[in-house]
Amino acid sequence: MNTQAKATSRERLLEAAATLTYQDGVGIGVDALCKAAGVSKRSMYQLFESKDELLAASLEERASAFAARLLPAADDDRSPRERILHVFEQVEAQAGAPEFRGCHYLAVQIELKDESHPASRVARRVKGNLTAFFRAEAERGRAGDPGLLSRQLILVFDGASARAGIKADDLTGLIAPTVTTLLDSAGVR
Amino acid sequence: MNTQAKATSRERLLEAAATLTYQDGVGIGVDALCKAAGVSKRSMYQLFESKDELLAASLEERASAFAARLLPAADDDRSPRERILHVFEQVEAQAGAPEFRGCHYLAVQIELKDESHPASRVARRVKGNLTAFFRAEAERGRAGDPGLLSRQLILVFDGASARAGIKADDLTGLIAPTVTTLLDSAGVR
Repeated sequence: MNTQAKATSRERLLEAAATLTYQDGVGIGVDALCKAAGVSKRSMYQLFESKDELLAASLEERASAFAARLLPAADDDRSPRERILHVFEQVEAQAGAPEFRGCHYLAVQIELKDESHPASRVARRVKGNLTAFFRAEAERGRAGDPGLLSRQLILVFDGASARAGIKADDLTGLIAPTVTTLLDSAGVR
Repeated sequence: MNTQAKATSRERLLEAAATLTYQDGVGIGVDALCKAAGVSKRSMYQLFESKDELLAASLEERASAFAARLLPAADDDRSPRERILHVFEQVEAQAGAPEFRGCHYLAVQIELKDESHPASRVARRVKGNLTAFFRAEAERGRAGDPGLLSRQLILVFDGASARAGIKADDLTGLIAPTVTTLLDSAGVR
């Protein structure tokens, strides 16, 4: 393993794939990815079986950062309601950035249109973890129907980040009242 | 104008662009579009300035069918609440089809990642019309905050169709309780 400060070819390829597919979409070519990473195509194919595998690995690599940017600390003392609202506060804050293009894990699945693609599978798993977080908090908060509430919350998450990503809505004054209405209705006080 | 039963080259190109970009994404090549339409590239470029213009025109062409499939008749006697729920019943019904890939007008904007693209502009306008429908009904239904309710409804529309389109949720038992909770909270009975 490389312990030097300089990123390895593998790291640079993962970074380029994550950044460029977020900016430009999954259609980005192998040449552009290799050029951005400063890695030859030959080296790329020694490290990854295909562009599809590189894309999947780049999404996997970013998964913990994605969760860390959204989720509250596991051991904070806040209520389930506050912990759920925390996630949506992060979405609203992130959506304000000009380079925000919505949730990468949703965009990749919409763009690929193929549930069996390795990158779609990673994206689905990562979002499944977020839904599981909502469900666990819904249960802890004694929601009337925790399954329904978690589906509603991930729907709002995806709808809000998609709309902010296409610059159709800046989310100001939108998410908090929507989520609190759903939490109230589910009995999560 | 061609009044024969046989579709013109222009019609076949519009149909191919709408169908193939929905199935495969906006990255579909000009060759594939022309092949599917049975039209030469030379003819395509005589009819449309570019693939971008063809894509924009195909979205425009489908806009009235999109609205007709979703909206209630302008002069039905139902309440604003029922007319809003009608739209979401259509989404739930459409989402059941195996070929359903979510809202084309959302997907195009997510895929293009360019608000100034002619197809993004068409998509934005078409979805703006749907938001305007929600807003008009919210006002007729005396919502406490019609602007907020219409933003919530289009967010649910986009979130639900995106999640159904990637096969992450079949929407069963999800949309109606979500929308009625939001309508109740806005005072639209």
